[in-house]
Parts: sequence; structure tokens; C-alpha cells
Amino acid sequence: MAIAWSAKASSMEALSLSPPNPMSSPVVLTQDELKRIAAYKAVEFVESGMVLGLGTGSTAKHAVDRIGELLRQGKLSNIVGIPTSKKTEEQALSLGIPLADLDSHPTIDLAIDGADEVDPHLNLVKGRGGSLLREKMVEGACKKFIVIVDESKLVKYVGGSGLAMPVEVVPIWWATTARKLQSLFEDSGCVAKLRKDSKGEPFVTDNGNYVIDLYLKKEIGDLQVASDAMLRITGVVEHGMFLDMATTVIVAGSYCCKTGDRFLNSLSANLLIDDDDESSQVLLFSVWWWGQGKVLVFTLGEEETVSGNVRIVKEQLKYEDDHVYQLQLLYSDNFNFIKSSSDY
Amino acid sequence: MAIAWSAKASSMEALSLSPPNPMSSPVVLTQDELKRIAAYKAVEFVESGMVLGLGTGSTAKHAVDRIGELLRQGKLSNIVGIPTSKKTEEQALSLGIPLADLDSHPTIDLAIDGADEVDPHLNLVKGRGGSLLREKMVEGACKKFIVIVDESKLVKYVGGSGLAMPVEVVPIWWATTARKLQSLFEDSGCVAKLRKDSKGEPFVTDNGNYVIDLYLKKEIGDLQVASDAMLRITGVVEHGMFLDMATTVIVAGSYCCKTGDRFLNSLSANLLIDDDDESSQVLLFSVWWWGQGKVLVFTLGEEETVSGNVRIVKEQLKYEDDHVYQLQLLYSDNFNFIKSSSDY
Repeated sequence: MAIAWSAKASSMEALSLSPPNPMSSPVVLTQDELKRIAAYKAVEFVESGMVLGLGTGSTAKHAVDRIGELLRQGKLSNIVGIPTSKKTEEQALSLGIPLADLDSHPTIDLAIDGADEVDPHLNLVKGRGGSLLREKMVEGACKKFIVIVDESKLVKYVGGSGLAMPVEVVPIWWATTARKLQSLFEDSGCVAKLRKDSKGEPFVTDNGNYVIDLYLKKEIGDLQVASDAMLRITGVVEHGMFLDMATTVIVAGSYCCKTGDRFLNSLSANLLIDDDDESSQVLLFSVWWWGQGKVLVFTLGEEETVSGNVRIVKEQLKYEDDHVYQLQLLYSDNFNFIKSSSDY
Repeated sequence: MAIAWSAKASSMEALSLSPPNPMSSPVVLTQDELKRIAAYKAVEFVESGMVLGLGTGSTAKHAVDRIGELLRQGKLSNIVGIPTSKKTEEQALSLGIPLADLDSHPTIDLAIDGADEVDPHLNLVKGRGGSLLREKMVEGACKKFIVIVDESKLVKYVGGSGLAMPVEVVPIWWATTARKLQSLFEDSGCVAKLRKDSKGEPFVTDNGNYVIDLYLKKEIGDLQVASDAMLRITGVVEHGMFLDMATTVIVAGSYCCKTGDRFLNSLSANLLIDDDDESSQVLLFSVWWWGQGKVLVFTLGEEETVSGNVRIVKEQLKYEDDHVYQLQLLYSDNFNFIKSSSDY
């Protein structure tokens, strides 16, 4: 799916303001561009004077960069950042973001971080980057936790991507701990593997621990029960399931679509979901359109709230200069497959 | 209570085999002697060919010493030890006990270790020595776990000694973790303190972590609930409550007693409790008598089983050369106060 954004940029700039040629190939954003879009959207929630949890990973990196940029531009001020890893700490310092620690700022206004998986209940898998413990400490201490992902991170269930669900363990007798973890999720076809670094040595976390990656073939059932069961294993320090922690998830996706004889080069959907009142809800739906070589943002109504498994057909979207677009959105059960089309 | 054993030894050796002078002061054992007695009794359960979990601390040290001694004497052979700390590892190596690790021996036949507290349900508090994590890994993997304590470790409830209930935590943002732990047990008047070493620096465990000591004024309620609540705090690696793990507890105590006009210099009671069939039971009752300058061991019947809160009056005890003693034992609710008297 990922076609490099830079490679497409020049051809996009060449596009006229008139409707694009229906035969031209759609502009597809790279995964990194999508990550950046989600990150920038999240940073819109940042206000001057906030204590911020700064996430770790390729998506969160964009958010930290953006916060640094807004500070430099004077659009934000009096920000204190609490980094979730040594790597983010270095990045933030290089950007001139003032830093503090959790001990001196036990309550955090807002944290922004990526995730490896997001399930339909906004439970997350995190830690493929190796910083799950600090991330969980910071993100468990914040009033609002915005998760930023590209659409590839949406899963039907925890582990559903087929990629690792990481567990941080003490190094001593890690094989015993791994065996216990694998046996715990035996019914889900679990395979437990020690994470290695590029040299083939055990990967060591910021806290001096190892990581056991769990690969699951099926759902593991009640996640809170699974969480407690893992934590009860002596040797387990923390696991990568972040349950009931995300307050908002921003998903950036790029969708190519065609309706009738009209063609829209590319459309990126950004879903903001908020479960403040304990049920996952779509609060905002924003659309970016790259058809004219620049990013345009449309927002649905006045924070229109749409419940769970819904279908929005031909919602009216307003363009900056009052052009009206018709957008057809089809949500799947778990907002996994969003098809969108536009007519203008 | 503790009068040095060495100081008493010579006067005891001078005692004749005739009934001791009723006016002589009772021989009271030091706490360390009691620990040694419990440890030696536990080592009687060790058989050649066993994989053994080797505990850490002043009581367990005696057991490891004893195992080393029996190996040297050829009374035990083909033993493999799994040490629960670097300190025990060094001790065992110096004694020539062959060592292995948990990864290569995931099932342990028998572990022997001390405890800081033992409650009436045989739940333990451990870790004041700083090795709770490895201890819990080893002792959670063994078929039989014998706990050896002197009578001062018997408590009515976890935390009831007024001493620390230790929690191993990751060093980063330890103050936040300590605050959460204290707040968790606020209703029990909990005070959380970072453990320091002799130089005033944070005490560091074998796993590179810190220890938060919890001081409790009241019971904390359901211990399994409390355990899960602690483990759910991000930053908590493991806590010092060992629930449903001990299969046998050996308590060594020294009791001075007088019945009628007969006087027994000193009597040490050794309680073995087994909860194999899910209710705490007294399986064996052994008594040491130092009245004649040496340790004599009496054992009640053929592993006579006595249920919970019982009173045994005038049980018949047999002396080696068929002298019969009458022993009166009064158990309290939590075997905390054992009064014994003898008549011969």
C-alpha cells in the first residue's frame, strides 16, 4: 500500500484545481505520512501550560517534533514534558522541550503516544518499541491519553495483528517465565519468544529487563483476567496490554475511492474516538484530501457524536471555501474497514 | 528473651542426669539457636537425588550449612541446589553444593527457606532480606516448600509484626510507585518507605530494583485481592506476600515451664503444619529439651493429625530410653502462644 509520499509530491503539485483526471492513479500516502497526520491532529489538543506525557516510537516521534516546532514558533509556551523513554528524552531535549519526571509531576494533563494494536474497545497493545513500562506509568497518570495510529494498527482483538504482544520480564530465569506465559495462553496457540537485538543478544529495556514477545493465534478471552494472570507470574514486570487507558484514538488512513464517474485521487480518514462516558464513540470525523497537492481538512458538524457500529452515508462535508462534498463512509463492526467515497 | 546459648552451655554441661534443681534459672535459647533447630529439622526432609531450592537469610543459612555438612559426610548425595540469591549461591559454592538454575530444572522437589512473618493460614511475608523475587520464583516451582522460622515470626495477620512488608519496584519514578502503594492500603494506616542501605543509598536488589517497605497498622483484608492490586501498579515488580505457597511451616520456640513441683529447665516446641488438604493442620509435634545439656527430640505418635485450634493435654511423649513425659500444650487461635509443661 505504501507509496512514498516524496515520490508523489511533485506530480501532486502539478495537479490543477480542476477535477483530476479520472484515469490518473490515486495518491496513496506512506505509512509514515499517515502517522504524521495522526500525530499533528493529536497535538491540536495540546494547550500552553500543560504537563505532557511524551510517547515513544515512530508515530509519537512526529508528535514530539510537532510540539517542539510549536514551542519554537511561540504558538505553545510553558509546556513540561515527561518522556516515556531515554530515546524520547533525547529527542525532546534536542528540540528544547522542558522536561520533568513523574515523581515531581504525578498528574499529567495529556499524553500522546502510538500503539502497536488498537482493538474495538480501545484496548491497546504497546511495547514493540521496548518502552512499555515507562509508557504505562506515564499514561496511567494522565487525565487524557490520545493514541495515534495509522489504520494498519486496528485489530479485531488483542494479538490479532499476528505480531508480538510484549511482556517485560526480569532477566534471571527468563526461560521459565517465558514457558509460564506460553502455557498461560496455550489455548490461544501462544508462542513465546525472547526478543533479541540486531546482534542476536537479548534486547534489554531501559529498566535493564528482557522482553518476551507473545504471538497469539486466537483471542485470549477476558483481557483483565489475562492481565492479572500474567502479572501473577513471578518474573513478569509488566505487559504490553493497555486496558481502559486510551481516552481518544486517532486513526489516520488513506483511502482511494471512486463513485460513479467522479474520481477522487485520495482521501485520508481520521477517526477520533472517545470513550469518556464508558462506551466507545466517534466524536469527530476528519478527512484529508490530497487531490490538489495539499492537505485539506474537513470536519463533520459540531463534534457530532455517532455511536458504535454505524454507517454514515452521504454526510455533508464543507470545504474551506464552501464547496460541498458528499462522503460515503461505511464502518465495520470494529472500524477496521472504512470505505469512503466522495462526489464533487 | 534471648540469652546467649554459648554463655549457658557450660552451666548446662554441668547439669547432672538427675532432675535439675527447681531453683536453677531456665535455659533459654537464642533466636539464632532456634533458627538452627528449625533449619536442621527441615533438612531431615531432604533426600539424596533431590533438586533443592536454597533459601536466603539468617534461618535458611543454617539449612544450607546443614545440607553441605550432610553432603560432606556422605549422608546425602546427588543433590542439585538452586539458590535464591547471589549470597546463597556463594555460600552453597563454598560448601561444595552442586548448583543449577531454574531454567534447566523447572521443577524443584523441595525448597527450604525462612520467612519474616507467618500468619495462621501459612501465608508468609518474605523479602526483608531483599531476595523476594528469586525466592518466589524458586518456591513457586517446588513440590514441597518448608518454611523455617523461630516463634517470633508468627503473626496474627500479614504486617502484624509491625515490621516491613517489602515490595520490589523498578527504580524509575519509585516515589510515584511508593505513593500508589501507600494509598492502596490507606485504610490500614500504611506508610511506604524506600529501603536504604547502610550508606543511606537506595538498597538495590539482585535484579537491580529498589524495595519499598510497607508498614501496616491494621489488616489489609483479602490478601489475594491485595496482591492483585499491588501487581497492577505499574512499577511494582513483585511483593513479599507468599500466598498459598508454604506446604509446611516449622516453628522453633523455647519455652520455660513449671508444673506442680516439677521443673523442666527449658523446652523448645517445634510445630510442623501441613495444609496439603487445604486446611492448616498440625502433623507433627516435636519437643526439644535442653535440661540435661543436650538436645533431645520427642515426637508425638505416628504423625498424629490434629486440627486447627486445639488443645492437647497430657499427651504421652516417649523419651529415648522409655521414660515417659506428660506434656500439656495449649494452642491459641493462631498457634502464637504455646504454653507447655512437663511432668516426669
